Amino acid sequence: MAGSSFGTAFRITTWGETHGAGVGVVIDGCPAGMELCEEDIQKYLDRRKPGQSRYTTQRKEGDQVEILSGVFEGKTTGTPISLIVRNHDQRSRDYSNIQDVYRPGHADYTYDAKYGFRDYRGGGRSSGRETIGRVAAGAVAAKVLQELGIHILTYAKAIAGIEISEDSFDEKEIGQNPFYMPDHGAAEKVREYADRMIKEMDSVGGVIECVIEGVRPGIGDPVFDKLDAELAKAVMSIGAVKGFEIGDGFRAASSRGSENNDEFMMQDGKVIKKTNHAGGILGGISDGSTIIFRSAVKPTPSIARGQQTVSRDGEDVEIHIKGRHDPMIVPRAVVVVESMAAITLLNGILKNLGATMDQVKKLYR
Amino acid sequence: MAGSSFGTAFRITTWGETHGAGVGVVIDGCPAGMELCEEDIQKYLDRRKPGQSRYTTQRKEGDQVEILSGVFEGKTTGTPISLIVRNHDQRSRDYSNIQDVYRPGHADYTYDAKYGFRDYRGGGRSSGRETIGRVAAGAVAAKVLQELGIHILTYAKAIAGIEISEDSFDEKEIGQNPFYMPDHGAAEKVREYADRMIKEMDSVGGVIECVIEGVRPGIGDPVFDKLDAELAKAVMSIGAVKGFEIGDGFRAASSRGSENNDEFMMQDGKVIKKTNHAGGILGGISDGSTIIFRSAVKPTPSIARGQQTVSRDGEDVEIHIKGRHDPMIVPRAVVVVESMAAITLLNGILKNLGATMDQVKKLYR
Amino acid sequence: MAGSSFGTAFRITTWGETHGAGVGVVIDGCPAGMELCEEDIQKYLDRRKPGQSRYTTQRKEGDQVEILSGVFEGKTTGTPISLIVRNHDQRSRDYSNIQDVYRPGHADYTYDAKYGFRDYRGGGRSSGRETIGRVAAGAVAAKVLQELGIHILTYAKAIAGIEISEDSFDEKEIGQNPFYMPDHGAAEKVREYADRMIKEMDSVGGVIECVIEGVRPGIGDPVFDKLDAELAKAVMSIGAVKGFEIGDGFRAASSRGSENNDEFMMQDGKVIKKTNHAGGILGGISDGSTIIFRSAVKPTPSIARGQQTVSRDGEDVEIHIKGRHDPMIVPRAVVVVESMAAITLLNGILKNLGATMDQVKKLYR
Amino acid sequence: MAGSSFGTAFRITTWGETHGAGVGVVIDGCPAGMELCEEDIQKYLDRRKPGQSRYTTQRKEGDQVEILSGVFEGKTTGTPISLIVRNHDQRSRDYSNIQDVYRPGHADYTYDAKYGFRDYRGGGRSSGRETIGRVAAGAVAAKVLQELGIHILTYAKAIAGIEISEDSFDEKEIGQNPFYMPDHGAAEKVREYADRMIKEMDSVGGVIECVIEGVRPGIGDPVFDKLDAELAKAVMSIGAVKGFEIGDGFRAASSRGSENNDEFMMQDGKVIKKTNHAGGILGGISDGSTIIFRSAVKPTPSIARGQQTVSRDGEDVEIHIKGRHDPMIVPRAVVVVESMAAITLLNGILKNLGATMDQVKKLYR
Repeated sequence: MAGSSFGTAFRITTWGETHGAGVGVVIDGCPAGMELCEEDIQKYLDRRKPGQSRYTTQRKEGDQVEILSGVFEGKTTGTPISLIVRNHDQRSRDYSNIQDVYRPGHADYTYDAKYGFRDYRGGGRSSGRETIGRVAAGAVAAKVLQELGIHILTYAKAIAGIEISEDSFDEKEIGQNPFYMPDHGAAEKVREYADRMIKEMDSVGGVIECVIEGVRPGIGDPVFDKLDAELAKAVMSIGAVKGFEIGDGFRAASSRGSENNDEFMMQDGKVIKKTNHAGGILGGISDGSTIIFRSAVKPTPSIARGQQTVSRDGEDVEIHIKGRHDPMIVPRAVVVVESMAAITLLNGILKNLGATMDQVKKLYR
Repeated sequence: MAGSSFGTAFRITTWGETHGAGVGVVIDGCPAGMELCEEDIQKYLDRRKPGQSRYTTQRKEGDQVEILSGVFEGKTTGTPISLIVRNHDQRSRDYSNIQDVYRPGHADYTYDAKYGFRDYRGGGRSSGRETIGRVAAGAVAAKVLQELGIHILTYAKAIAGIEISEDSFDEKEIGQNPFYMPDHGAAEKVREYADRMIKEMDSVGGVIECVIEGVRPGIGDPVFDKLDAELAKAVMSIGAVKGFEIGDGFRAASSRGSENNDEFMMQDGKVIKKTNHAGGILGGISDGSTIIFRSAVKPTPSIARGQQTVSRDGEDVEIHIKGRHDPMIVPRAVVVVESMAAITLLNGILKNLGATMDQVKKLYR
Repeated sequence: MAGSSFGTAFRITTWGETHGAGVGVVIDGCPAGMELCEEDIQKYLDRRKPGQSRYTTQRKEGDQVEILSGVFEGKTTGTPISLIVRNHDQRSRDYSNIQDVYRPGHADYTYDAKYGFRDYRGGGRSSGRETIGRVAAGAVAAKVLQELGIHILTYAKAIAGIEISEDSFDEKEIGQNPFYMPDHGAAEKVREYADRMIKEMDSVGGVIECVIEGVRPGIGDPVFDKLDAELAKAVMSIGAVKGFEIGDGFRAASSRGSENNDEFMMQDGKVIKKTNHAGGILGGISDGSTIIFRSAVKPTPSIARGQQTVSRDGEDVEIHIKGRHDPMIVPRAVVVVESMAAITLLNGILKNLGATMDQVKKLYR
Repeated sequence: MAGSSFGTAFRITTWGETHGAGVGVVIDGCPAGMELCEEDIQKYLDRRKPGQSRYTTQRKEGDQVEILSGVFEGKTTGTPISLIVRNHDQRSRDYSNIQDVYRPGHADYTYDAKYGFRDYRGGGRSSGRETIGRVAAGAVAAKVLQELGIHILTYAKAIAGIEISEDSFDEKEIGQNPFYMPDHGAAEKVREYADRMIKEMDSVGGVIECVIEGVRPGIGDPVFDKLDAELAKAVMSIGAVKGFEIGDGFRAASSRGSENNDEFMMQDGKVIKKTNHAGGILGGISDGSTIIFRSAVKPTPSIARGQQTVSRDGEDVEIHIKGRHDPMIVPRAVVVVESMAAITLLNGILKNLGATMDQVKKLYR
């Protein structure tokens, strides 16, 4: 069992490595009858592309998605949607000095331990390019969610410890700076710091925040398939993510019950909460308020300065990782986090349609 | 699909509510031929019991586990192991004033939204008693892991913001104080703070840390079933957990690549890492070093002081939650976190036995 | 992975052996809000009980089901329903001479090969008692289906090669003879033959037919989860079943396209078929007509006459299987086939509720 | 949930329709380290191609498989293997008169009922072309099985009621006639009959038999994932298959226990069976003897003669299905049955590697 599928009612299976023919995904379970075209998916992939700034990679990747199946006369048929993005500009020669060594912070060593050998070409299956399948599928999921009135907003909350401020929060800023930060001032500070990092041949990490509006109460399963547990798995499965928290998250660990509880009240005949320390999910089920979570992204491991490591033959060596790599990956991970959130949420909605006899009768007849 | 199962190769299905006949779990996929008896499981359940101190609940719960199937002549048969713990001392009368209101911080409202009505008796399926099945299964999983040389240590790293200190770390202290803290000094500070909380009719949260030794490199799947992603889901599925991080976790978000990378070196012919910022998992696969993660536990929502909420009929009301409940749940959640870690890890090992042709041939013939 | 679960949206997990404490099942995914009590389930179990005639076993089994969870104030809660039937009258002494030998036609040898040893007490997990969990769950599934207007009728179509005749078909006869045959004349012939078999210490097999009315068109998934493929797996998983066919089944193999195709026509504004060679399923999806399938049941392997076999130590031996066993199992398998059909069909309905955007919007809002 | 995946440890996900860009499959869980190239797969696909004789379709389909991922330096990497076969010669104009009518015996009507509309171009997802993904994956599975010493032989046992005879059985004949029959005489009779069918614009069905040698005892799971139950589901999921039986199958239903039981005996220190009425599987687990099963294939529904049906607008109409279609599909279904058997068996082997503690310890360390 190789873990390349995610979801049950809305299931995605990704495939592809950096230097194979391409990467892609098969989406099974997308409801029939929704309009879908390459452009819907391409705009998500474009948010992922490196080369958007000098702060992310200079590798040129002309990733064009092609829909191979599952769409007829512009609408989803309900049958599997197969998407492919062919690989083009992946220069093999950049990676020759790492063929037989284990790069610190990368999965080279662990893949070897598991499989006996690995595809050394640029990280193989563990590379960032694997995220293309996730983002393509996320684009499809996001479109279905929009039809249901659900919207997701994702951005960098902090990079290199420099945080956005609530007072300066401006959604329109997100697309205006290379860091996807909704705060012009913070983005400028990050720009300065990033310039220094590039000089010092180092890298930085950050925190990505995701805000989901429009989810009605009742989505999620109690016990093991709690909606926040599934979001945690989905987001933690993205390479370089080392933490996940929802609502107040780790801050809740040092608060008091009287402060942390969200009290309920009536407003216009609807139940709402006065606060949202829970982050929109209670007992694993959505409560109707905004779902908000954060993920911690470690600094990208590939840095140009020298590092100590070992070779496949068991010798201590020093390596310098040449080639083109990102001094920070947070900006391009933003759309990946958003995609995983969309996929998880749609899966949660689709597998919960028959929770009560009334719902079943409503749809069965 | 109601999400009451966890795992694939080692799968557990829990059942039971607070005031039904009992709670239990069915374990499918436990390898045959291991010695197992009620005592192996009981000692884990006893770590979960409330009434261990005045800081956890005074409810007396004589939880005795009974093995109903799956064991013959003292050994596992490979067939499903069904475990039951009968419910005894759950006084219905304690809950009458909450029958028609939504308690803040609890899943009452969300259950209602999902199912149309809920079992109001003490939280039904969302209550802490549901964890009995998890812990019973965790005991079985932990025993299999011990046979493979894997050991798990879990404790409270912080309560109410009071952290243990590395200098005073003492494993033997864990069983000596009611908080499962491996630091006598910190435990005393917590004791003082907890006494104050009880007076103020409030509650506190904390952080639970879990350390796993002995996992060989290569366990876990790349992409979606990464070992850390599955641990995240497993632990986040525990009620009251609002965050998960592995290795440096959220601290990695503000560190630099040169600081965060774990360099490799040879020692006695084996590959080891100089540091362990990664927390034992790289690219979703174990790297042979200690696996270490933390979970954030929110303050228990049931507090005696008045709270604003709404009734099922849509009226604003104030409630006081009477009855016996925990001023802190971190201590009793420790063994639940350990159980989920054991179950997840064993599931990861069992479903990865045939990753290479050599492994398959070794076992098939 | 031990294969003790069936289904995804409506999932059942059975447990228990002949001589353990009991047998049972956990049902996950039953929609909330349906009335359910022990009697609903007991009446199904009673159809399964041996001792109903001299033609089925004289073992007395007082199987009383107990609902341990998942029902509150007489209605399903949507949380797992745990059912148990305690074991009583299973005399160990009947099986002592088979402890170390492999009974022909039974799973003794194959279990040993798989697990290294087996629970010899009356077949362990492979015994007929394992079907109790299936039937109990089937009773619950059947009740949900009835609420949706779906009804299942199951009976013995043939025993020992003696077939019922269409002209004499009488549904009321099913409960009037020990063979569950809807044909009085055929039942009498079977009675004579069965008497002879008992004298000759031999056993007979038969064919069970299952007729399902009221399934609307559109249930089932194309490709791998075709409704007939899932029914095949469900029914073939019953011990002693060696064949499955739907509609004309194997007769279709020697017919012509012009004979086998079911032509469509309009009737009262609805699409119906003139014939039903397909058996109600086309392309794996229900077509609105009666679903009809058959399963072949082999003769019960436990016979009193001497048989050649080998012992665990690798010696050729002759055995005589003493104790109480069925000269025919077809009659008691009838309700097991019906139960698996109900479970499969309900699972198919529940996991297909969101096949189109219209359905999803209808239920989501 | 759309049912386009099969298997758990060895999982395949197929995609593609007749007139989309292509068809394909993603294989997840293939063990790493096995040699694999396009030719290994192409030779299986070539057995599927129509146009091999005047008795199967004259459509020219140049199906060339391309490996897009999962293979590096000629060996499987353990990561998903994505295979694609581009669609070429599918003339749209052949299908214009069936756009708005439901063809008898096809899934047009049931797809419409499920999805609200359908891709009318040549059957969409329900067409025979969907089997390309299955066969491609089957080729990979078969190669792994061969490495384990397991071999599968599949052929047409009967067509149009004309059966092969045991006395004339000749394996070499299978590749010598267009019907894949291992009996020259029977093949000639079928040829005559088929010529008549073509004149009469009709079609015929048949029975495919599959023989698997080399499976060691112990493969399969008791209860629900019995090896024969999974084979039944796998084979019944192939379009046009209406029945499945193993060993004596439906003949066992009219035999006696004394005739049907396979007695055990020792031979050269190994346990063997004197007969094989069981067909190689007991209690759902392989017993070490030959596994043999049969599937019933209905006559191909597309015939040129007129048929009564209805249009999407609810009118009774008569249709003549023009275009190029098979007068019999049994010959090209032979390799599809073999593929599903290989996939099922490999999945069964891979998910059962850790059935006992001894096996787990053997592989874990």
